[in-house]
Amino acid sequence: MRWNELSDERCSLARTLAVVGDRWTLLVLREAFLRVRRFDDFRARLGIARRVLAERLAHLVEEGVLEKQVYQTRPLRHEYRLTQKGLDLYPALLSLVHWGDHHYAGRAGPPVVHTHKTCGHDFHSVLSCSECGEPVGARDVLARPGPGSA
Amino acid sequence: MRWNELSDERCSLARTLAVVGDRWTLLVLREAFLRVRRFDDFRARLGIARRVLAERLAHLVEEGVLEKQVYQTRPLRHEYRLTQKGLDLYPALLSLVHWGDHHYAGRAGPPVVHTHKTCGHDFHSVLSCSECGEPVGARDVLARPGPGSA
Repeated sequence: MRWNELSDERCSLARTLAVVGDRWTLLVLREAFLRVRRFDDFRARLGIARRVLAERLAHLVEEGVLEKQVYQTRPLRHEYRLTQKGLDLYPALLSLVHWGDHHYAGRAGPPVVHTHKTCGHDFHSVLSCSECGEPVGARDVLARPGPGSA
Repeated sequence: MRWNELSDERCSLARTLAVVGDRWTLLVLREAFLRVRRFDDFRARLGIARRVLAERLAHLVEEGVLEKQVYQTRPLRHEYRLTQKGLDLYPALLSLVHWGDHHYAGRAGPPVVHTHKTCGHDFHSVLSCSECGEPVGARDVLARPGPGSA
Protein backbone atom coordinates (compact mmCIF):
# COMPACT_ATOMS: atom_id res chain seq x y z
CA MET A 1 0.00 0.00 0.00
CA ARG A 2 1.27 3.46 -0.80
CA TRP A 3 0.53 6.62 1.08
CA ASN A 4 -1.57 8.18 -1.63
CA GLU A 5 -3.89 5.16 -1.39
CA LEU A 6 -4.40 5.64 2.31
CA SER A 7 -7.20 8.18 2.05
CA ASP A 8 -9.23 5.55 0.19
CA GLU A 9 -8.76 2.91 2.85
CA ARG A 10 -11.74 2.05 4.98
CA CYS A 11 -10.06 2.98 8.21
CA SER A 12 -10.58 6.29 9.92
CA LEU A 13 -7.06 6.24 11.31
CA ALA A 14 -5.58 5.78 7.85
CA ARG A 15 -7.77 8.58 6.50
CA THR A 16 -6.77 10.85 9.36
CA LEU A 17 -3.08 10.09 8.88
CA ALA A 18 -3.38 10.92 5.18
CA VAL A 19 -4.23 14.45 6.38
CA VAL A 20 -2.19 14.98 9.53
CA GLY A 21 0.12 11.96 9.76
CA ASP A 22 3.28 13.85 9.19
CA ARG A 23 5.47 15.23 11.94
CA TRP A 24 5.86 18.69 10.48
CA THR A 25 2.12 18.94 9.98
CA LEU A 26 1.46 18.13 13.63
CA LEU A 27 4.04 20.68 14.76
CA VAL A 28 2.47 23.28 12.47
CA LEU A 29 -0.84 22.50 14.18
CA ARG A 30 0.78 22.76 17.62
CA GLU A 31 1.83 26.30 16.69
CA ALA A 32 -1.64 27.08 15.33
CA PHE A 33 -3.14 26.05 18.69
CA LEU A 34 -0.66 28.43 20.33
CA ARG A 35 -2.23 31.15 18.13
CA VAL A 36 0.55 31.41 15.57
CA ARG A 37 -1.04 32.50 12.29
CA ARG A 38 1.54 33.95 9.94
CA PHE A 39 3.88 32.21 7.55
CA ASP A 40 7.03 33.90 8.84
CA ASP A 41 6.09 33.18 12.46
CA PHE A 42 5.57 29.47 11.76
CA ARG A 43 8.88 29.46 9.95
CA ALA A 44 10.81 31.24 12.69
CA ARG A 45 9.37 29.06 15.48
CA LEU A 46 9.82 25.73 13.71
CA GLY A 47 13.06 26.30 11.80
CA ILE A 48 11.34 24.68 8.83
CA ALA A 49 12.23 25.22 5.16
CA ARG A 50 9.94 27.65 3.28
CA ARG A 51 9.01 25.08 0.66
CA VAL A 52 8.12 22.42 3.24
CA LEU A 53 6.07 24.86 5.32
CA ALA A 54 4.24 26.18 2.23
CA GLU A 55 3.37 22.61 1.20
CA ARG A 56 2.10 21.63 4.64
CA LEU A 57 0.00 24.80 5.01
CA ALA A 58 -1.49 24.38 1.52
CA HIS A 59 -2.42 20.78 2.32
CA LEU A 60 -4.09 21.77 5.60
CA VAL A 61 -6.03 24.54 3.83
CA GLU A 62 -7.10 22.14 1.08
CA GLU A 63 -8.37 19.70 3.71
CA GLY A 64 -10.25 22.44 5.56
CA VAL A 65 -8.17 22.16 8.74
CA LEU A 66 -6.85 25.70 8.37
CA GLU A 67 -8.37 28.61 6.49
CA LYS A 68 -6.41 31.31 4.73
CA GLN A 69 -7.57 34.86 5.45
CA VAL A 70 -6.34 38.18 4.15
CA TYR A 71 -5.10 40.42 6.95
CA GLN A 72 -3.38 43.08 4.85
CA THR A 73 -3.91 44.19 1.26
CA ARG A 74 -0.83 46.34 0.49
CA PRO A 75 1.12 44.21 0.07
CA LEU A 76 -1.28 41.28 0.12
CA ARG A 77 -0.74 39.13 3.21
CA HIS A 78 -2.57 36.06 4.49
CA GLU A 79 -2.83 34.36 7.80
CA TYR A 80 -3.81 30.81 8.66
CA ARG A 81 -6.49 30.09 11.23
CA LEU A 82 -7.83 26.84 12.60
CA THR A 83 -11.32 25.98 11.35
CA GLN A 84 -13.74 24.04 13.54
CA LYS A 85 -12.43 20.89 11.85
CA GLY A 86 -8.95 21.95 12.90
CA LEU A 87 -10.03 22.74 16.46
CA ASP A 88 -11.52 19.24 16.61
CA LEU A 89 -7.97 17.86 16.44
CA TYR A 90 -7.19 19.26 19.88
CA PRO A 91 -8.01 16.09 21.86
CA ALA A 92 -5.65 14.01 19.71
CA LEU A 93 -2.89 16.60 19.94
CA LEU A 94 -3.23 17.08 23.69
CA SER A 95 -3.28 13.31 24.24
CA LEU A 96 0.01 13.01 22.35
CA VAL A 97 1.49 15.86 24.39
CA HIS A 98 0.43 14.33 27.70
CA TRP A 99 1.78 10.93 26.68
CA GLY A 100 5.12 12.64 26.05
CA ASP A 101 4.90 14.44 29.40
CA HIS A 102 4.19 11.20 31.22
CA HIS A 103 6.88 9.10 29.57
CA TYR A 104 9.63 11.52 28.62
CA ALA A 105 9.52 14.62 30.82
CA GLY A 106 11.64 12.95 33.54
CA ARG A 107 12.64 14.68 36.72
CA ALA A 108 12.58 18.15 35.21
CA GLY A 109 8.83 17.87 34.84
CA PRO A 110 6.70 18.82 31.84
CA PRO A 111 7.90 21.67 29.62
CA VAL A 112 4.36 23.02 29.38
CA VAL A 113 1.60 22.96 31.98
CA HIS A 114 -2.06 23.06 30.92
CA THR A 115 -4.66 24.80 33.03
CA HIS A 116 -8.35 24.07 32.58
CA LYS A 117 -9.91 27.53 32.63
CA THR A 118 -13.33 26.17 33.59
CA CYS A 119 -12.18 24.70 36.92
CA GLY A 120 -8.90 26.58 37.34
CA HIS A 121 -6.73 23.49 37.90
CA ASP A 122 -3.65 22.21 36.10
CA PHE A 123 -4.75 18.98 34.50
CA HIS A 124 -3.84 16.13 32.24
CA SER A 125 -6.20 14.80 29.61
CA VAL A 126 -8.43 11.81 30.21
CA LEU A 127 -10.29 9.94 27.48
CA SER A 128 -13.94 9.58 28.43
CA CYS A 129 -17.01 7.87 27.04
CA SER A 130 -19.51 10.18 25.32
CA GLU A 131 -22.38 8.09 26.74
CA CYS A 132 -21.57 7.48 30.41
CA GLY A 133 -18.79 10.00 31.02
CA GLU A 134 -16.47 7.43 32.62
CA PRO A 135 -12.76 7.18 31.67
CA VAL A 136 -12.02 4.74 28.85
CA GLY A 137 -8.89 2.61 28.50
CA ALA A 138 -7.76 0.29 25.70
CA ARG A 139 -9.14 -2.75 27.51
CA ASP A 140 -12.60 -1.28 28.04
CA VAL A 141 -13.42 -1.09 24.35
CA LEU A 142 -14.83 -3.53 21.86
CA ALA A 143 -14.24 -2.62 18.19
CA ARG A 144 -16.58 -4.10 15.59
CA PRO A 145 -17.32 -3.44 11.90
CA GLY A 146 -19.52 -0.38 11.44
CA PRO A 147 -21.90 0.68 8.63
CA GLY A 148 -19.01 2.04 6.54
CA SER A 149 -17.05 -1.21 6.57
CA ALA A 150 -18.81 -2.92 3.66
CA MET B 1 15.76 21.47 12.83
CA ARG B 2 16.16 17.88 11.78
CA TRP B 3 14.12 14.93 12.94
CA ASN B 4 16.90 13.32 14.91
CA GLU B 5 17.12 16.49 16.99
CA LEU B 6 13.44 16.38 17.87
CA SER B 7 13.78 14.05 20.82
CA ASP B 8 16.00 16.65 22.47
CA GLU B 9 13.51 19.44 22.01
CA ARG B 10 11.73 20.72 25.08
CA CYS B 11 8.31 19.95 23.75
CA SER B 12 6.40 16.84 24.68
CA LEU B 13 4.71 16.74 21.29
CA ALA B 14 8.05 16.78 19.51
CA ARG B 15 9.37 14.05 21.79
CA THR B 16 6.27 11.97 21.23
CA LEU B 17 6.46 12.40 17.47
CA ALA B 18 10.10 11.28 17.52
CA VAL B 19 8.72 7.94 18.76
CA VAL B 20 5.36 7.53 17.04
CA GLY B 21 5.16 10.38 14.50
CA ASP B 22 5.30 8.20 11.48
CA ARG B 23 2.27 6.90 9.65
CA TRP B 24 3.42 3.30 9.43
CA THR B 25 4.23 3.30 13.12
CA LEU B 26 0.74 4.46 14.01
CA LEU B 27 -0.83 1.83 11.75
CA VAL B 28 1.39 -0.84 13.34
CA LEU B 29 0.05 0.33 16.71
CA ARG B 30 -3.53 0.24 15.40
CA GLU B 31 -2.97 -3.43 14.59
CA ALA B 32 -1.39 -4.07 17.98
CA PHE B 33 -4.50 -2.63 19.66
CA LEU B 34 -6.53 -5.06 17.53
CA ARG B 35 -4.41 -7.83 19.14
CA VAL B 36 -2.14 -8.51 16.18
CA ARG B 37 1.18 -9.75 17.58
CA ARG B 38 3.16 -11.59 14.93
CA PHE B 39 5.47 -10.23 12.27
CA ASP B 40 3.78 -12.03 9.39
CA ASP B 41 0.32 -10.94 10.56
CA PHE B 42 1.36 -7.27 10.72
CA ARG B 43 2.85 -7.67 7.28
CA ALA B 44 -0.18 -9.34 5.74
CA ARG B 45 -2.64 -6.85 7.21
CA LEU B 46 -0.67 -3.73 6.35
CA GLY B 47 0.90 -4.70 3.03
CA ILE B 48 4.13 -3.19 4.36
CA ALA B 49 7.64 -4.10 3.20
CA ARG B 50 9.52 -6.51 5.53
CA ARG B 51 12.40 -4.09 6.02
CA VAL B 52 10.13 -1.17 6.91
CA LEU B 53 8.07 -3.27 9.31
CA ALA B 54 11.18 -4.70 10.99
CA GLU B 55 12.56 -1.18 11.46
CA ARG B 56 9.33 0.18 12.92
CA LEU B 57 8.90 -2.77 15.30
CA ALA B 58 12.53 -2.53 16.47
CA HIS B 59 12.10 1.18 17.15
CA LEU B 60 8.92 0.59 19.17
CA VAL B 61 10.64 -2.17 21.19
CA GLU B 62 13.65 0.08 21.81
CA GLU B 63 11.33 2.81 23.10
CA GLY B 64 9.45 0.40 25.34
CA VAL B 65 6.12 0.79 23.51
CA LEU B 66 6.12 -2.87 22.46
CA GLU B 67 7.88 -5.81 24.06
CA LYS B 68 9.24 -8.78 22.20
CA GLN B 69 8.36 -12.15 23.70
CA VAL B 70 9.29 -15.67 22.66
CA TYR B 71 6.22 -17.74 21.83
CA GLN B 72 7.95 -20.70 20.19
CA THR B 73 11.47 -22.06 20.51
CA ARG B 74 11.81 -24.50 17.56
CA PRO B 75 12.22 -22.59 15.42
CA LEU B 76 12.60 -19.48 17.55
CA ARG B 77 9.66 -17.10 17.07
CA HIS B 78 8.78 -13.82 18.75
CA GLU B 79 5.65 -11.83 19.15
CA TYR B 80 5.15 -8.16 19.90
CA ARG B 81 2.89 -7.01 22.70
CA LEU B 82 1.91 -3.57 23.88
CA THR B 83 3.51 -2.56 27.16
CA GLN B 84 1.71 -0.25 29.60
CA LYS B 85 3.51 2.64 27.89
CA GLY B 86 2.08 1.41 24.60
CA LEU B 87 -1.43 1.00 26.04
CA ASP B 88 -1.16 4.60 27.25
CA LEU B 89 -1.20 5.69 23.59
CA TYR B 90 -4.79 4.52 23.22
CA PRO B 91 -6.44 7.89 23.94
CA ALA B 92 -4.36 9.60 21.24
CA LEU B 93 -5.05 6.85 18.72
CA LEU B 94 -8.76 6.69 19.41
CA SER B 95 -9.02 10.49 19.20
CA LEU B 96 -7.40 10.38 15.75
CA VAL B 97 -9.78 7.61 14.68
CA HIS B 98 -12.85 9.47 15.89
CA TRP B 99 -11.71 12.68 14.17
CA GLY B 100 -11.51 10.66 10.95
CA ASP B 101 -14.97 9.17 11.59
CA HIS B 102 -16.44 12.60 12.18
CA HIS B 103 -14.89 14.34 9.19
CA TYR B 104 -14.38 11.64 6.57
CA ALA B 105 -16.79 8.75 7.12
CA GLY B 106 -19.54 10.49 5.11
CA ARG B 107 -22.94 8.96 4.53
CA ALA B 108 -21.69 5.40 4.73
CA GLY B 109 -20.95 5.92 8.43
CA PRO B 110 -17.86 4.88 10.37
CA PRO B 111 -15.99 1.77 9.24
CA VAL B 112 -15.54 0.68 12.85
CA VAL B 113 -17.88 1.17 15.79
CA HIS B 114 -16.51 1.27 19.34
CA THR B 115 -18.52 -0.08 22.25
CA HIS B 116 -17.67 0.89 25.82
CA LYS B 117 -17.84 -2.43 27.67
CA THR B 118 -18.39 -0.73 31.02
CA CYS B 119 -21.68 0.92 30.03
CA GLY B 120 -22.54 -1.16 26.97
CA HIS B 121 -23.05 1.79 24.61
CA ASP B 122 -21.44 2.67 21.30
CA PHE B 123 -19.51 5.83 21.99
CA HIS B 124 -17.13 8.41 20.66
CA SER B 125 -14.20 9.69 22.66
CA VAL B 126 -14.37 12.88 24.68
CA LEU B 127 -11.35 14.65 26.13
CA SER B 128 -11.94 15.38 29.81
CA CYS B 129 -10.15 17.18 32.60
CA SER B 130 -8.40 14.94 35.15
CA GLU B 131 -9.39 17.36 37.93
CA CYS B 132 -13.07 18.21 37.38
CA GLY B 133 -14.11 15.54 34.87
CA GLU B 134 -15.69 18.06 32.48
CA PRO B 135 -15.07 17.94 28.71
CA VAL B 136 -12.16 20.07 27.53
CA GLY B 137 -11.93 21.93 24.22
CA ALA B 138 -9.08 23.90 22.68
CA ARG B 139 -10.50 27.19 23.93
CA ASP B 140 -10.83 26.02 27.55
CA VAL B 141 -7.11 25.57 28.06
CA LEU B 142 -4.31 27.92 29.07
CA ALA B 143 -0.81 26.65 28.25
CA ARG B 144 2.11 28.08 30.23
CA PRO B 145 5.77 27.19 30.71
CA GLY B 146 6.19 24.27 33.13
CA PRO B 147 9.11 23.17 35.33
CA GLY B 148 10.82 21.41 32.40
CA SER B 149 10.87 24.50 30.20
CA ALA B 150 14.03 26.09 31.58
